[in-house]
Amino acid sequence: MKVNVLGKKNSVLNQYISEIRDVQVQSDSLRFRKNLFRIGQLFAYEISKVLAYEEKQVTTSLGTTAVPVLSKQPVVATILRAGLPVHYGILDIFDKASNAFISAYRKVYKDGHFVINVDYCSSTELSGETLILSDAVLATGSSMVVCYKELLNHGKPAHTHIVSVIASIEGVNYLKRKLANTGITFWVGAIDDEMTAQAYIVPGLGDVGDLAFGEKGELTS
Amino acid sequence: MKVNVLGKKNSVLNQYISEIRDVQVQSDSLRFRKNLFRIGQLFAYEISKVLAYEEKQVTTSLGTTAVPVLSKQPVVATILRAGLPVHYGILDIFDKASNAFISAYRKVYKDGHFVINVDYCSSTELSGETLILSDAVLATGSSMVVCYKELLNHGKPAHTHIVSVIASIEGVNYLKRKLANTGITFWVGAIDDEMTAQAYIVPGLGDVGDLAFGEKGELTS
Amino acid sequence: MKVNVLGKKNSVLNQYISEIRDVQVQSDSLRFRKNLFRIGQLFAYEISKVLAYEEKQVTTSLGTTAVPVLSKQPVVATILRAGLPVHYGILDIFDKASNAFISAYRKVYKDGHFVINVDYCSSTELSGETLILSDAVLATGSSMVVCYKELLNHGKPAHTHIVSVIASIEGVNYLKRKLANTGITFWVGAIDDEMTAQAYIVPGLGDVGDLAFGEKGELTS
Amino acid sequence: MKVNVLGKKNSVLNQYISEIRDVQVQSDSLRFRKNLFRIGQLFAYEISKVLAYEEKQVTTSLGTTAVPVLSKQPVVATILRAGLPVHYGILDIFDKASNAFISAYRKVYKDGHFVINVDYCSSTELSGETLILSDAVLATGSSMVVCYKELLNHGKPAHTHIVSVIASIEGVNYLKRKLANTGITFWVGAIDDEMTAQAYIVPGLGDVGDLAFGEKGELTS
Repeated sequence: MKVNVLGKKNSVLNQYISEIRDVQVQSDSLRFRKNLFRIGQLFAYEISKVLAYEEKQVTTSLGTTAVPVLSKQPVVATILRAGLPVHYGILDIFDKASNAFISAYRKVYKDGHFVINVDYCSSTELSGETLILSDAVLATGSSMVVCYKELLNHGKPAHTHIVSVIASIEGVNYLKRKLANTGITFWVGAIDDEMTAQAYIVPGLGDVGDLAFGEKGELTS
Repeated sequence: MKVNVLGKKNSVLNQYISEIRDVQVQSDSLRFRKNLFRIGQLFAYEISKVLAYEEKQVTTSLGTTAVPVLSKQPVVATILRAGLPVHYGILDIFDKASNAFISAYRKVYKDGHFVINVDYCSSTELSGETLILSDAVLATGSSMVVCYKELLNHGKPAHTHIVSVIASIEGVNYLKRKLANTGITFWVGAIDDEMTAQAYIVPGLGDVGDLAFGEKGELTS
Repeated sequence: MKVNVLGKKNSVLNQYISEIRDVQVQSDSLRFRKNLFRIGQLFAYEISKVLAYEEKQVTTSLGTTAVPVLSKQPVVATILRAGLPVHYGILDIFDKASNAFISAYRKVYKDGHFVINVDYCSSTELSGETLILSDAVLATGSSMVVCYKELLNHGKPAHTHIVSVIASIEGVNYLKRKLANTGITFWVGAIDDEMTAQAYIVPGLGDVGDLAFGEKGELTS
Repeated sequence: MKVNVLGKKNSVLNQYISEIRDVQVQSDSLRFRKNLFRIGQLFAYEISKVLAYEEKQVTTSLGTTAVPVLSKQPVVATILRAGLPVHYGILDIFDKASNAFISAYRKVYKDGHFVINVDYCSSTELSGETLILSDAVLATGSSMVVCYKELLNHGKPAHTHIVSVIASIEGVNYLKRKLANTGITFWVGAIDDEMTAQAYIVPGLGDVGDLAFGEKGELTS
């Protein structure tokens, strides 16, 4: 698995990453979502540089010229709900792309062990496609692997790009082990060193879903 | 259940509705999603007129003044995946709102009858809140009722506004029956007369999820 | 001149007005411009309710239906530079509209008196059109009157809507005198009571151009 | 003058360039402006890679970390009216930037010769700043040079980046001659070979101002 850490090179991407990490700034949910959206745009643009292009003859009002355009639109997929703002940024760049949405949850047994199950998956046909699968963060990496495998039920993509804004080093290593020999490219803004027992990345940025969309409520029945 | 048909009065809303219905125009998925987004914004604005406000003392650079601001942000909820573009428009207007996302699917038995089950629900606490629950269309109305009831597990809202861009008259009547005495307000752009056997509204606008996000693929395993 | 004060009725518009007035909130220029943009959208939507519509036969994938669409797009015009964010919101609603941009400046003579001159005007043909002319604020009203009259050099509109987010009562009265018998409709968010000697509205919101686009620099040559 | 032709390397930028050139696609003014906006975003991002950064200590909810953020926001300037959509994309990336707006027109004398005069200039202080000056296209290059020189009246920038989506080779050479030894970096999407007698780039994309904002009208007085 090839790993591209976009935040290693200076760019305005790091400005946005600093804002979504910052406890003061992240409390403005409009700006928080806007930052994730722009981050999604920038990842999509960097990924677009490695996609396939073909020359298209374009007729202007004053002549014709050949412009390299995408041979094929990628499929853009995301993990609910935290991945949505990043996904919307990616879709904003690839505006003709087909989409997939997927969700997984942790089922905890009485003895404390748990499994991750997919509860929602709506996907376009993936066979032979370029898939861009995004989530806001990569903590343990378990959800990402489960969701990726579930998506394979809709066909084997020609190539898969996985995107996450912040990852834990443990999660990246987990992906490397579980997705070895898949040819997947992993795109990330920054890789953090630690994780809490509750699987929050440290220093990380907290709970992205809560910050973007509000705290989840307890079930009252 | 009070029904507000916004398209009955002239406004640019009908311009957008004509574009999302039009087979020529709807094939541009960027414009299709943009139209649903703007429609979501306009619905949110109209709903905002019936919410509660309170005077807030605001300090400008040259003085102070009292401005009526929202007493409380509503909770904005949507049904996946078709509701997402409308939802994003509503959230754009109520940018501090908490969110809920929910999904339901049709489980068909061998004898042909089916039940609608919820497979995904991520919701903030709803007790005492003003809930705005949106979907792109209201066909039979079954999904909307199932999703609304599922959301009640997260608390009983003080008031619920249901939004759908296009509805069938059958779906509206179903809602009236099933949600009688709930005090719900239903907001809709236009109500169409018919429905196909596959529950597509006629003349309607086709499959909103496919138009916004691409056709779903068959399961290959 | 008919005056519509949109802020008199409760709506989320007042939420945005409170934020652009508030010295704490307005320092976030992204949110400041976003609020002006949304305010522009809401004004455009309210204005759209009084425009002319005609039934258009629309073909959906499953049938045909008549939808009332705009008989003609309005022309959207704005006064530079402060009017730009509001204008962009109006253009976002009327996305097929033609545009006009105009700018005026105060030429001060040694004895202290001044005249307002137009230095930039780029306008589409206005004859017979519905014109929506916006600025962020209406202080003395002089610039608005000068700009409106300059635009008439590009043809007499069938009807003109003037939009400003905040106005001084003095400015509104000036418009009423200067634009009497023009049939103009004036749309405003709130009307404030006072004005400083430097023509800032009190309580107002300060210098909109500076808040949206940064302070102007002194000429160094 | 260093010249960076971004369209030489494959990326989704060329997709947008093909759409704004294409006579069929460019007639949708919403998509046309959206494409210019996204192009502005991508240019801004590429430029952001060569700006100065400094480490900032950021406090997250679970720790602290150092993130490289912009040492200073650039100033973003544009030439009216055609440059506005690109400018808005650049400002969307550098959302805290101060702005400048400038306009120039061609004054034609009876004998056919002409001079280019600035009629509008609203600029923040530029001394020591990083200036990003954009226009949609660079045809002869005369307006760009006149506007750049006018902006110098507001202070000498530490460095200037000039952006234009499409340029003629003649315009680029003109800039090289007129702005030699200024250290300016020129960023362009594509360089076309020819120009008409009326200074339209061939194959080019036609009149950007008209396509984005509607045709200009004749003066009726």
